[in-house]
Amino acid sequence: MPLSQRIDAAVLRALDTTQGREAPAQLSEALGYACLPGGARIRPTILMSVAMACGDDRPALSDAAAAALEVIHCASLVHDDLPCFDDAELRRGKPSVHKAYSQPLAVLTGDSLIILAFDILARAADEDPARGLRLIRALATRTGMPGGICAGQGWESEREVDLAAYHRSKTAALFIAATEMGAISAGHDAEPWVDLGALIGEAFQVADDLRDAVLDEKTLGKPVGQDDLHGRPNAVAEYGVEGAVARLKDILAGAIASIPSCPGEAALAEMVRLQAQAIMPKMPARYRV
Amino acid sequence: MPLSQRIDAAVLRALDTTQGREAPAQLSEALGYACLPGGARIRPTILMSVAMACGDDRPALSDAAAAALEVIHCASLVHDDLPCFDDAELRRGKPSVHKAYSQPLAVLTGDSLIILAFDILARAADEDPARGLRLIRALATRTGMPGGICAGQGWESEREVDLAAYHRSKTAALFIAATEMGAISAGHDAEPWVDLGALIGEAFQVADDLRDAVLDEKTLGKPVGQDDLHGRPNAVAEYGVEGAVARLKDILAGAIASIPSCPGEAALAEMVRLQAQAIMPKMPARYRV
Repeated sequence: MPLSQRIDAAVLRALDTTQGREAPAQLSEALGYACLPGGARIRPTILMSVAMACGDDRPALSDAAAAALEVIHCASLVHDDLPCFDDAELRRGKPSVHKAYSQPLAVLTGDSLIILAFDILARAADEDPARGLRLIRALATRTGMPGGICAGQGWESEREVDLAAYHRSKTAALFIAATEMGAISAGHDAEPWVDLGALIGEAFQVADDLRDAVLDEKTLGKPVGQDDLHGRPNAVAEYGVEGAVARLKDILAGAIASIPSCPGEAALAEMVRLQAQAIMPKMPARYRV
Repeated sequence: MPLSQRIDAAVLRALDTTQGREAPAQLSEALGYACLPGGARIRPTILMSVAMACGDDRPALSDAAAAALEVIHCASLVHDDLPCFDDAELRRGKPSVHKAYSQPLAVLTGDSLIILAFDILARAADEDPARGLRLIRALATRTGMPGGICAGQGWESEREVDLAAYHRSKTAALFIAATEMGAISAGHDAEPWVDLGALIGEAFQVADDLRDAVLDEKTLGKPVGQDDLHGRPNAVAEYGVEGAVARLKDILAGAIASIPSCPGEAALAEMVRLQAQAIMPKMPARYRV
């Protein structure tokens, strides 16, 4: 089964557990709306690619890990789009959850999806409690405080920003979760995989800055120019478009070099190259990675 | 050590794990603000009382369960107070989190505390992974969709409300979590403890309706008349004050009768009676439970 099908199937099975005759109808619907159809599913694809590079000896666990990571990523998008944060009307080319439903339902959708992510892992942990608990710890560390995506978003309320801590928690954290959780799912140590996740995360941040700077709203599927609008630091403002592209190439070379020795090392390097192409905005040939 | 000290110490230890030099300062502070000083800590007190009635053979696990339950309860209060829900300016006699900090930080405080709750359990699960995973499942079930407190809050966005499902998920769910998680912490089955939690939850709902109807804002520490204001169903509107008090007495008698046979049965019955007195608003003697 292609990775994208495995991921979608795992997300669908997870969403099924949130449905029931005794559940409020709109919130039930909003959970699916927030997760389906998905975006590029980059994080769970990386997670599964790492799990496969490590042997993927417990596919039910890597399925669950991929679904948990994607679901909590969707939760973060729903909350980030709220009027008190980005006030985004569009997400993935359709109205954001608070626009399609309401602000209360958007808050609850995010909350429910965060809880669902941990429930997915706890359910799947029956077959290997030790790995299951390590997955839960990794997900909590990379999403909560002091260093997860909540911390990253929290930095945007500070007057003085620790830029390294901001980028590491705001964007890199979920990519680190992806490589760590892929390794853990397959019974490997997480620690050697942290650098790969951090570098992919950094690449993604630079690519996102490029997209925000050079694409139009229709192509991007969400409002553009948000970084400038909110005065957020970004690579294009710092290095210019050509400089940012050069930086992206360097980071990706570093990411591929950082892959720990494992059975599927070559295939994983290829996957990182493909993901890099997928996240690059369509630009003149001289800029291509 | 008295229960209240054990609970506060466990919550403090949990909050410590969210702090760090690389964390944004305001969000770090807001997490403590949302949890300290605590309210009556009724849910973790019930949890620990059940654990002790069941032998409390792993106190580190019951400590963690109590902290996790209290922390996620605080998260729900922070989100419920947001302008898009109750728009409450006061909580526990001080400004609510979005008033003291900001709406973005209130959303992130709730999100971070939800994640923290699961992290607390996963950390404590090392000494007994099976019980730890059952605790995580119980907490997820009673907080997420389709039947946890998110569902309860979600019902308030529906035109037609299933009142039984609404009350069970809105208020009873966390009391059911308390009795279930107390039993699980001590290695007992959760299922025989569901009724006790559900009945305490129902009693609490009726007592809360009475408080909302008869107290003033200063005594209550938060805005009064919220049920009428938001057109929410409540026991006083349905039965009148005397009828609601009579109903409360019946429910409590049923709760005490429902306690499963266990070593600390008598002490637990006494605790339920004490909690019932604690949650009753100060009223003329004839109304007292």
